[in-house]
Amino acid sequence: MATVNTKTGQAVDRSVLDSLLRRRLFYTPSFEIYGGVSGLYDYGPPGCAVLNNMIELWRKHFVLEEDMLEVDCTMLTPEEILKTSGHVEKFADWMCKDPKTGEIFRADHLVEEVLEARLKGDKEARGQTVVVDEAKEAKKKKKVSTKAVQLPDAVVQEYEEILAQIDNFDGVELEGIIAKHDIRNPTTGGNLLPPVAFNLMFQTAIGPSSNMPGYLRPETAQGQFLNFQKLLDFNQNSMPFASASVGKSFRNEISPRAGLLRVREFLMAEIEHYVDPEGGKKHTRFDEVKDVELSLLNRDVQSSGKTDIQKMTVGKAVETGLVDNETLGYFIARIQLFLLKLGVDPNKLRFRQHMANEMAHYASDCWDAELQTSYGWIECVGCADRSAYDLTVHKNKTGAPLVVREPRAEPLKVEEWQIDLDKKKFGPRFKKDGKTVEAAINSLSQDFREKLSLELEQNDKVEIDVEGVASGKVELEKDIIKIEKRTRVENTREYTPNVIEPSFGIGRILYSMIEHVYWSREGDEARGVLSFPPLIAPTKVLIVPLSSNQAFAPLSQRLMTKLRRMGVSNRVDDSSASIGKRYARNDELGTPFGITVDFQSVKDNTFTLRDRDSTKQVRASEDEIVQALKSLVDGDETWEDIRQRLPEFTGQDVE
Amino acid sequence: MATVNTKTGQAVDRSVLDSLLRRRLFYTPSFEIYGGVSGLYDYGPPGCAVLNNMIELWRKHFVLEEDMLEVDCTMLTPEEILKTSGHVEKFADWMCKDPKTGEIFRADHLVEEVLEARLKGDKEARGQTVVVDEAKEAKKKKKVSTKAVQLPDAVVQEYEEILAQIDNFDGVELEGIIAKHDIRNPTTGGNLLPPVAFNLMFQTAIGPSSNMPGYLRPETAQGQFLNFQKLLDFNQNSMPFASASVGKSFRNEISPRAGLLRVREFLMAEIEHYVDPEGGKKHTRFDEVKDVELSLLNRDVQSSGKTDIQKMTVGKAVETGLVDNETLGYFIARIQLFLLKLGVDPNKLRFRQHMANEMAHYASDCWDAELQTSYGWIECVGCADRSAYDLTVHKNKTGAPLVVREPRAEPLKVEEWQIDLDKKKFGPRFKKDGKTVEAAINSLSQDFREKLSLELEQNDKVEIDVEGVASGKVELEKDIIKIEKRTRVENTREYTPNVIEPSFGIGRILYSMIEHVYWSREGDEARGVLSFPPLIAPTKVLIVPLSSNQAFAPLSQRLMTKLRRMGVSNRVDDSSASIGKRYARNDELGTPFGITVDFQSVKDNTFTLRDRDSTKQVRASEDEIVQALKSLVDGDETWEDIRQRLPEFTGQDVE
Repeated sequence: MATVNTKTGQAVDRSVLDSLLRRRLFYTPSFEIYGGVSGLYDYGPPGCAVLNNMIELWRKHFVLEEDMLEVDCTMLTPEEILKTSGHVEKFADWMCKDPKTGEIFRADHLVEEVLEARLKGDKEARGQTVVVDEAKEAKKKKKVSTKAVQLPDAVVQEYEEILAQIDNFDGVELEGIIAKHDIRNPTTGGNLLPPVAFNLMFQTAIGPSSNMPGYLRPETAQGQFLNFQKLLDFNQNSMPFASASVGKSFRNEISPRAGLLRVREFLMAEIEHYVDPEGGKKHTRFDEVKDVELSLLNRDVQSSGKTDIQKMTVGKAVETGLVDNETLGYFIARIQLFLLKLGVDPNKLRFRQHMANEMAHYASDCWDAELQTSYGWIECVGCADRSAYDLTVHKNKTGAPLVVREPRAEPLKVEEWQIDLDKKKFGPRFKKDGKTVEAAINSLSQDFREKLSLELEQNDKVEIDVEGVASGKVELEKDIIKIEKRTRVENTREYTPNVIEPSFGIGRILYSMIEHVYWSREGDEARGVLSFPPLIAPTKVLIVPLSSNQAFAPLSQRLMTKLRRMGVSNRVDDSSASIGKRYARNDELGTPFGITVDFQSVKDNTFTLRDRDSTKQVRASEDEIVQALKSLVDGDETWEDIRQRLPEFTGQDVE
Repeated sequence: MATVNTKTGQAVDRSVLDSLLRRRLFYTPSFEIYGGVSGLYDYGPPGCAVLNNMIELWRKHFVLEEDMLEVDCTMLTPEEILKTSGHVEKFADWMCKDPKTGEIFRADHLVEEVLEARLKGDKEARGQTVVVDEAKEAKKKKKVSTKAVQLPDAVVQEYEEILAQIDNFDGVELEGIIAKHDIRNPTTGGNLLPPVAFNLMFQTAIGPSSNMPGYLRPETAQGQFLNFQKLLDFNQNSMPFASASVGKSFRNEISPRAGLLRVREFLMAEIEHYVDPEGGKKHTRFDEVKDVELSLLNRDVQSSGKTDIQKMTVGKAVETGLVDNETLGYFIARIQLFLLKLGVDPNKLRFRQHMANEMAHYASDCWDAELQTSYGWIECVGCADRSAYDLTVHKNKTGAPLVVREPRAEPLKVEEWQIDLDKKKFGPRFKKDGKTVEAAINSLSQDFREKLSLELEQNDKVEIDVEGVASGKVELEKDIIKIEKRTRVENTREYTPNVIEPSFGIGRILYSMIEHVYWSREGDEARGVLSFPPLIAPTKVLIVPLSSNQAFAPLSQRLMTKLRRMGVSNRVDDSSASIGKRYARNDELGTPFGITVDFQSVKDNTFTLRDRDSTKQVRASEDEIVQALKSLVDGDETWEDIRQRLPEFTGQDVE
């Protein structure tokens, strides 16, 4: 991968950008005066303002625009829920410990780094050119040192095969690879203990008696699923609909690196759109987006080891079946529109389809919006069709009817095997296990029921598997259970909706977008400019009195109050620094517009208005300037519009 | 305390209100399909919208209005920080366990309930009237049953004295009271184990090696304090200034009850305003608020066992010294203005001064904004002058310069005892402990330095206490330490700012405010009305087509789009329920305005606009109606204004 360039063609120098972001307090390591904790960052005033603006836009673009039902669920989550969802068992990474030094390595990362270093050494020994993938290097924690040692051809091939599927190994496989290829602590050369699974959720105990283990949620989705029934009811039983949620989630990374891109506490915005699985998952507003052109990296291209982009309208992508259905396509297009409003560079945005082995078994299709940064292509938004999985597991676990019921136009006749239990005998027999046994019986398939009915006829009793009760099997005699084929007339259709889930990592989007809007002026490369769109900029207007002359203060104050009343956030900088320096500081803060208060202003109440990106200025009366700003910030006019209708000003040099 | 009435004079029936809030999904118990967890609640769509509107108003009223520096710090917090702040040691309640049943009681609550029940029994036995404090009763977990048993007069007096200071006992004292007065498990009569401290923070481990214990923050303040230096720098070294933060905090309550008022995860909004301790803590904008009239319940009135309110302007309160200083007074007034904008009833708002024994030793004054509800007076906002405590403890622990440095107009000459260390000898002697020893030496008081200098002269060596190094004492000889009285000229003044901290419990304010805006229409007491101010209402406008006639749909759609584009949130209800029912539902949701689309609308594009509170209607053209709504929602006009300028409509009966 080549280096990534800014819009103006300079290479992004990450160390310079990072120093800008910390100096201007966009973000800062948390607890720094106590030494800091890796993977935890605080947002300072400009970062916080950008975050708030992003969330406000997200709410407008998604929640308000589509009448989504926003909910705010707790982060503390009892263990039982996350067992059902699969997180307790599967939300884990494999880690290896060095028993001597106590160091801990993420197993897949370690294998990757060591094998890559060996392949590099092999190339050096063979006298081949070594191409360094800088983006990949930057993400590495340890730089594993390279030795120029040639490897047998077969070993090279084996290493390359391992690396190609490094994301797919489980603990046993990783253990095998580590043993076979003698992978050790790169610093000390010491042997490592076999990989153990490390669950990535933060655990805690709820309440004083410690008998309720809980976790901090790893995503906001579960709270939304659990409220499905209430939300459907709130929506007056009308389908389709979506819930939405904005809030923090947590992931106890083994060894976080890569700054804001891999953190232990992060802001997410998630939508769960519920749709009828029958009828092809159409979307009534699909027509509005069908001409949106997307950059797609599909599954087949990736399988062939390539990264070629297909440009295609979402209409075409759904029509050809590349994107599974209209609703999924609708959200992919809406995600793109959202990202572009934020200031994302369309040339650094692609949608990558998940490979079959990346997707959960239940998912029918999944696309990630990836943004190109100096760290490589970063997954920032996921958009998955999760089918009926989530509602089904919680329904099966709790018995809550997480389903939609709607009247059928035509009654449906169903022939089926029905089971009757004699409750008078059944209750006393199973006591507290009754519910569990009954649930197990109710979930039996039609085929199995048919088999059971024969068994019952032959033996006068049947045996049924019930997990967690007695030995795991219960016996039921003819006097307690009856199995018959009957015809049922269904007037109501009952179904479990499918879920389309657009899931936004807000911090990742923020960082990637900042890389996209970052550039520097020719001849002043040490200072950056952040060209946030006005909607997203932390502060919209900087008011700069020419000097500390007393005559300027009341004018600055009046402008400030007037703009604030119109909802245009602004700051007065009356520090003693030169106007150029004050504007340069605000270029780094991404303030799109500046007003200079000068002696002419005192005389005739006119002001100059400066555009951050072009540094061009216009001059007009107070009312005209204030009105122009309102119109720029609301997005009703562009700077070009303003420049064409107000007289240019070239008096001061404030670049 | 008497029952609490709505604005229209009905008694607030909490069970009816609570059922409304759950039915309309303002809030709902979290994880209810899994049985729920006490003290954890989710906000549904209308609750979430009200929360978001409150936060937006808070940001406008405080952060934007005063250029505060908003930060967003992590909730995960390493233990060391919370040790320094005192939370690890002191943020705890005392709990008693019943060794037989495993039940856990909060010790102070148990003592209170048992002694109150005995006093009640005594009154019954003496034939006196028993006045039940319903608000207090409602908060109790167990109703301890009362037996009519007369107590000796001395015992009655002793019980009353214990109850008067129930908040002030530590574990040993509670243990003594429990033993002396034979307090047991009220249900079983079983003996309890002695009280143990239960820390109210949720504990977890950060990172894979479990060697970094951490907690979920109990408040947002600590993250703000730790960033003080960076924020001061960001503010271009200018004082005073404030930081602000909105986010979740956590409190692992022993046995939460009282609904949204006592929860384990809650939204806070906190301000840390940093002010120079010299010069009387004046505030430049105090004049703007000095005539705001407050209802004050001062310390002395409370000491005399009364709850009489003094009505007084904040100007007067500061002038007479009742409120400690202008900055504290300024924020108290600003808090009141904020609460009134939200819809809080001014007659159910008071500011209660903390008693001397309630305040931390370092605080110089503290006032709580309390709102009256059916649970009694509820602390919703705290406003404390925390002096220099927080910055000082973190500065002492880390050595970070959490101070302000400013040039002195006149250089200051200071005569003082200075200590010199011979670094060449000091370094090798103490190695890694060097920093700790040096910090201990630097923090020695002037008096102590004088004493040391004599000791050094006499013994040629001195002994200094250094916690955590060697035996806790280190010896320093004459060749390594020198202590001399010298004159230092200070051109820079260095000071630790004091902190004024307004701290808002958003969930408590939300619940209390809802009780204040809740009422029901005469003759329809089962249905409630929530009279949110338009600014706070979850949805501003309900659009109601008269029937499902096809002609209405395009008009509804057009109104919806138009209003949405103007930022006025709205919903179309085209369900088949009667217009009256649809409006009644939205009265419960607190939607302030309704537009009816009828046959006349199809003909001449006029619409009726309905006011929730009066149920009066006006009729006008589409443009006029839309403009009126924009003006109502922005607060530029009231319903009375609209009613006077647009023609009244009495056609439909839509009450």
